[in-house]
Amino acid sequence: MTRPPGHRTYTVVGLGAVGGYYGARLAAAGHVVRFVARSDVDHVRRHGLVVESPHGDVKLTNVEVYGDLSAVPASDVVLLAVKTTDNDAVLPHLGELVGPDSIVVVMQNGLGVEETIAAALPEAQVLGAMCFVCCHKVGPGHVRHLDYGQVTIGEHRAGGEAAGITDAVRAVASDLRVAGLSVQTVEDLATGRWRKLVWNIPYNGLSVVLDAGTDQLMADPVSRKLVEELMWEVVGGAAACGHHIDDGFVETMLRTTDEMTPYKTSMKLDFDAGRPLELDAIYRAPIRAARHAGFEMRRAEVLYRQLRFLDHRSGCG
Amino acid sequence: MTRPPGHRTYTVVGLGAVGGYYGARLAAAGHVVRFVARSDVDHVRRHGLVVESPHGDVKLTNVEVYGDLSAVPASDVVLLAVKTTDNDAVLPHLGELVGPDSIVVVMQNGLGVEETIAAALPEAQVLGAMCFVCCHKVGPGHVRHLDYGQVTIGEHRAGGEAAGITDAVRAVASDLRVAGLSVQTVEDLATGRWRKLVWNIPYNGLSVVLDAGTDQLMADPVSRKLVEELMWEVVGGAAACGHHIDDGFVETMLRTTDEMTPYKTSMKLDFDAGRPLELDAIYRAPIRAARHAGFEMRRAEVLYRQLRFLDHRSGCG
Repeated sequence: MTRPPGHRTYTVVGLGAVGGYYGARLAAAGHVVRFVARSDVDHVRRHGLVVESPHGDVKLTNVEVYGDLSAVPASDVVLLAVKTTDNDAVLPHLGELVGPDSIVVVMQNGLGVEETIAAALPEAQVLGAMCFVCCHKVGPGHVRHLDYGQVTIGEHRAGGEAAGITDAVRAVASDLRVAGLSVQTVEDLATGRWRKLVWNIPYNGLSVVLDAGTDQLMADPVSRKLVEELMWEVVGGAAACGHHIDDGFVETMLRTTDEMTPYKTSMKLDFDAGRPLELDAIYRAPIRAARHAGFEMRRAEVLYRQLRFLDHRSGCG
Repeated sequence: MTRPPGHRTYTVVGLGAVGGYYGARLAAAGHVVRFVARSDVDHVRRHGLVVESPHGDVKLTNVEVYGDLSAVPASDVVLLAVKTTDNDAVLPHLGELVGPDSIVVVMQNGLGVEETIAAALPEAQVLGAMCFVCCHKVGPGHVRHLDYGQVTIGEHRAGGEAAGITDAVRAVASDLRVAGLSVQTVEDLATGRWRKLVWNIPYNGLSVVLDAGTDQLMADPVSRKLVEELMWEVVGGAAACGHHIDDGFVETMLRTTDEMTPYKTSMKLDFDAGRPLELDAIYRAPIRAARHAGFEMRRAEVLYRQLRFLDHRSGCG
């Protein structure tokens, strides 16, 4: 395979909706992209990977896809795109995917997700990426992208300190932009993580507990009010932890969601499919961090306990 | 009909589970009991009223039952046993049921329920009764009593002041005791109302939102913890409003529920039947009262808004 000069090699761990979408865009832009999948390996080897998208479809053939992490050569960049609930299966082998200068981009939801990876890979440069994207898997090797796709990316530092815009952040952001994606780089990853939670905490949980789409939650003034109250509570938790989120952000998130194509959140999709919910990363970690800083996220905690109950009843968690 | 000397006449407004159960017990004890029903009138006239109960079945024939409040003669005591959501249909005609010395016993859930009745009937003595009973309607004129049955009763005073144990409270308590029921009289009705909410706020709401019985909510440590947190929040709301609930009460409520026959709450039964939920009395009023007193019941408010959303979606409220 010829490799255009300067093009970085990528390994995408997790061929779900997020890994499939971003991996396909990078491959379409000319990067070597290796996918690590679980159930889709044979299908993708035979039939390739298809992304349907209003921003342009991608159809990849001859996809380099692996079922076994230990068989994958080291790449320049590893995109970790499995759910946090699958970390236990992946973490022990992650070291085999990275070389001495590798960059690991944690494309997961929640708080504290980079700490886990940095602890497992003390040599790697660990970035975090928040994907604001509406997409889902419709079948093996088949991702449907509905709306959005922005990535916010920053480098992790122990203790949540701001790393600034590092060379690693610039490199990955540049590759994603060339691949046609909208990218924002942040000096302070932890604040970026909290900003993402302003959306995830209300919508992920309420969509499961109330069996409702984002459009239904926004249409009834009562649930809309609850969404807003939860958002402000997350802003309060962030502030207690030293991460300032500007006052206009809640309004922006509400307006963005109003304008969104009606959407099942990833947690709702997981719940409906009987998969475990990402409760530790999205609820437990921020609630604990805020409590440690003297701020009680009582509203989010109600939702968290309700979700845990439902997760247990599904036989998960 | 012969009337034993000293026996008071009763009108029971609402032939649901609560009205049917307590009315039947009073009738079986020899009181004249007039029932006001909605859909059951013809059935009960023809087939009577049946209460199945582990404390002894009651089968009443020749039941004095009315479909129209204006046709009912004034009784000594009126038991108001309709849901608060049916108050609007009943209140305009309630005056026709009471004489100058009548006692009205509000057998409803929630806070502020006596204020509404006292405002509509300024001449009447208004009592409040909290029924801690597991029973439900299984068909027309047919109530199944599962467990418990205690009544806590006190007299209402404007502004929630303690009325002491009044003659009216003694009279009704005596009749209920003679009818075989366990009765507690309280000097301070408002505190009694808040104590009842310690149970109703967690179990009614969570049973609907999580589609769970009391036994399931108690069996999972996570939902049990949430129940307990909600209970303590209600105790906090009561305290802010000047109503002290002793520290052991939460533990007692948890233990009582542990020992309870697995039970669908009244709100869950209403929800499953597509009936409107008693959200104003059980959630809105106490949350507002606490807020007015400077205490935010944030956890209960999450549950309240979730329930309101579900109530709207059912086409109610």
